[in-house]
Amino acid sequence: MINLDNFFKPKSIAIIGASRKKGKVGNVLVENLLHSKFKGKIYPVNPKANKILNLKCYKSVLNIKEKIDLAVLAIPAEIILKSIKECNKKEVKDILIITAGFSEIGNTKLENELKQYIEKNQIRMIGPNVLGILDFHTKLDTIFLPRTRLKRPEAGCISFVTQSGAAGSAVLDLATFEGHKFAKFISYGNATTIDETDIIEYLGNDKDTKVICLYIEGIKDGRKFMKVLKDVTKKKPVIAIKGGISEQGSKATLSHTGSLAGDYKVYSGVFKQLNIIQAENLEDMLDYAYIFESMLKPKGNRVQIITNGGGYGILTVDAISKTKNLQLAQLTEKTKNYLKKQFPKTVTVNNPIDLVGDADNKRYELAINACLQDNNVDLILLIVLYQTPLLTFEITDLLAKEIHKSKKPIVIVSTGGEIINKFKKVLEEKGIVTYTFPHEAVKALSALVEYYF
Amino acid sequence: MINLDNFFKPKSIAIIGASRKKGKVGNVLVENLLHSKFKGKIYPVNPKANKILNLKCYKSVLNIKEKIDLAVLAIPAEIILKSIKECNKKEVKDILIITAGFSEIGNTKLENELKQYIEKNQIRMIGPNVLGILDFHTKLDTIFLPRTRLKRPEAGCISFVTQSGAAGSAVLDLATFEGHKFAKFISYGNATTIDETDIIEYLGNDKDTKVICLYIEGIKDGRKFMKVLKDVTKKKPVIAIKGGISEQGSKATLSHTGSLAGDYKVYSGVFKQLNIIQAENLEDMLDYAYIFESMLKPKGNRVQIITNGGGYGILTVDAISKTKNLQLAQLTEKTKNYLKKQFPKTVTVNNPIDLVGDADNKRYELAINACLQDNNVDLILLIVLYQTPLLTFEITDLLAKEIHKSKKPIVIVSTGGEIINKFKKVLEEKGIVTYTFPHEAVKALSALVEYYF
Repeated sequence: MINLDNFFKPKSIAIIGASRKKGKVGNVLVENLLHSKFKGKIYPVNPKANKILNLKCYKSVLNIKEKIDLAVLAIPAEIILKSIKECNKKEVKDILIITAGFSEIGNTKLENELKQYIEKNQIRMIGPNVLGILDFHTKLDTIFLPRTRLKRPEAGCISFVTQSGAAGSAVLDLATFEGHKFAKFISYGNATTIDETDIIEYLGNDKDTKVICLYIEGIKDGRKFMKVLKDVTKKKPVIAIKGGISEQGSKATLSHTGSLAGDYKVYSGVFKQLNIIQAENLEDMLDYAYIFESMLKPKGNRVQIITNGGGYGILTVDAISKTKNLQLAQLTEKTKNYLKKQFPKTVTVNNPIDLVGDADNKRYELAINACLQDNNVDLILLIVLYQTPLLTFEITDLLAKEIHKSKKPIVIVSTGGEIINKFKKVLEEKGIVTYTFPHEAVKALSALVEYYF
Repeated sequence: MINLDNFFKPKSIAIIGASRKKGKVGNVLVENLLHSKFKGKIYPVNPKANKILNLKCYKSVLNIKEKIDLAVLAIPAEIILKSIKECNKKEVKDILIITAGFSEIGNTKLENELKQYIEKNQIRMIGPNVLGILDFHTKLDTIFLPRTRLKRPEAGCISFVTQSGAAGSAVLDLATFEGHKFAKFISYGNATTIDETDIIEYLGNDKDTKVICLYIEGIKDGRKFMKVLKDVTKKKPVIAIKGGISEQGSKATLSHTGSLAGDYKVYSGVFKQLNIIQAENLEDMLDYAYIFESMLKPKGNRVQIITNGGGYGILTVDAISKTKNLQLAQLTEKTKNYLKKQFPKTVTVNNPIDLVGDADNKRYELAINACLQDNNVDLILLIVLYQTPLLTFEITDLLAKEIHKSKKPIVIVSTGGEIINKFKKVLEEKGIVTYTFPHEAVKALSALVEYYF
């Protein structure tokens, strides 16, 4: 395993190509590090500046007296090699190259030279052509998107490894907005030396990472990938989305990260064999990650639906019937008889349990408790259409109490606007997984069951 | 065609079962009408009250001297028939029955009695077991969800016909939050006499309605449906989602709206034949509706992608390759040569056009204009990952200008959190269709092409 500690918890960073000009990559990099709560030392390097954002600036990395753990390079492609040589002289062995303009635009010669030098001198390099790296626990922040444009999430357990910086950051931004928490974010670009597999292997042993999301366009070394992933997926779930599945998409990867995309069917088969959860699109990837963020291991695949909207119950049943691995729970007669006694005759006790439009908090409490005690139920999908007038906001406490005591995975579906978003945000803050649509929740439950069985 | 005018633009409404008690259905109904800008007269009916929300209350509909265009009934199922007889005596021929507790819970006897009386006396009845009706142009508001829980959208051109009130209102709430505008919302419940087809036929001739969304669990009269829909889809797009497609889901529809769901394949075939756009889930239904809300008729099926994130471009190509009816546009050599001259060498001019992470507003303007002029391009999918630092907010004006002058449909994909939501909201307010994920936009473009070709 390659030790990538210095990419996530360096004690000192040199920003080579730091800039005084607001908005420029080399300026944003320094500013982000300053505004993050990163505790290491920051050394801007720029031959033409004395100070950058009030930090002393160095003409070359060789002028820095202190030890440098990580060098971040944001200088033109043509002078990258020269700069790496200086880093090597200074014994900086961990290098992150932001700069683009290598194999992805046909400049393979330059990238090969780089690769040769790196390998010969036992340097660890991530990049080139990357957005950067974030560690939400150490607060390391080396991505060049301003914090005013991309809010950083709180420290959590999802790590996201992405070949495409833009795809990664856009999705990270959305997930953060939805209240999800991350461990690490790694844009690895052209993967000239350190590749996706090296990073996944490292994350497999990272205690902060409980679930790994992966956007890849190509795999550098298939055999290595298979060997490593087989191990990692035993320890934690890996959710992957493969860009370039079509012939035309495959062509587009070449001009993006210089990847040869390879055949989709081959990938798909390998993913299945390795117990990698394959997401069809970015939305699914996030939906799957959320369920692993805080979920228990289910005992089986039988889902009970509880709803206050009949149509939503039906659509959920339909969605479950489309999965290959979920089935509808069949409540015991005991549970059914008990619940029927508790509820008015308009309530249907079956699967779904339809608490109907005039359901109050109490009906939910009764239904959930009965399902938790029923051995025929493995997973609960709870639809709470909070638009109905008899539900009060206290239901968030009630749901949190029930869900936290539960040994069965429970997810909530709720759809709506401003008020429902508040309702869901409160639930998310209590560590409860919520989805907007029934089919989303069902697909996520299916991914959960797929991973464990 | 059944004239449903009184359900959407009555001059006077009696709320039978109006209540003084806050939160009760009969109270919410009166309150909603009062707080909407509905211009007709409101007559609460309740034998036990003198005043409700400061309105004079009547012991019976027979005590009202003025003419009543529409009676809304929210009284127990057992006394519905008695009340309808009074309405008939008063010559109220348009009746909306909110009350549940009929065939959907096995009470078919009562529903049959109701049906017989209604038909014999030539009354137009929508319901029972409905959420109510909304007309966003006349401001008629007869749904029993409080305005504090469910915000009403602005007047627009989407009409939503839904067998499930809860499914309908939750989706309406979300769409409103996302800035979309509606014409009418009709929850039609058990469809005892007036059914989904009657309502669709009416909407087919409604000048406010440009696109019809439909959530159905069953179709009452297949022959009538086919005859009417064949005509309506020639005039405007109908997007339908069928609940109860699985055997188990089909069973659940029985206890929801008393519908026999029927075989999915049969429905699917009929929908295709009638040029009804079939949505797989509620999310897709909304995504499709949005594209018809403001879209031009495309000249063909060739999509050009413009992006500032390579990965997003690739995922879009993949999504297009999954559709049956879209293909990637091939820019003319003239366009390619022109654009290559304009851009730095890191930009890829192909399909996708990858403007890369340092794209500014100007690059977008150049790329869009070139694609608008290129006859090989029919549709444009524009990815704007607004997290990148060189894009400024003025791009919203630029995009609006380009899109409004365009005769080719253009949709925008943008993913992110708070800042991106603001960015998208501004675009939506300018009448531009935005999506969160590439696959969503692609599916919507595919639905657009499916409808016209």
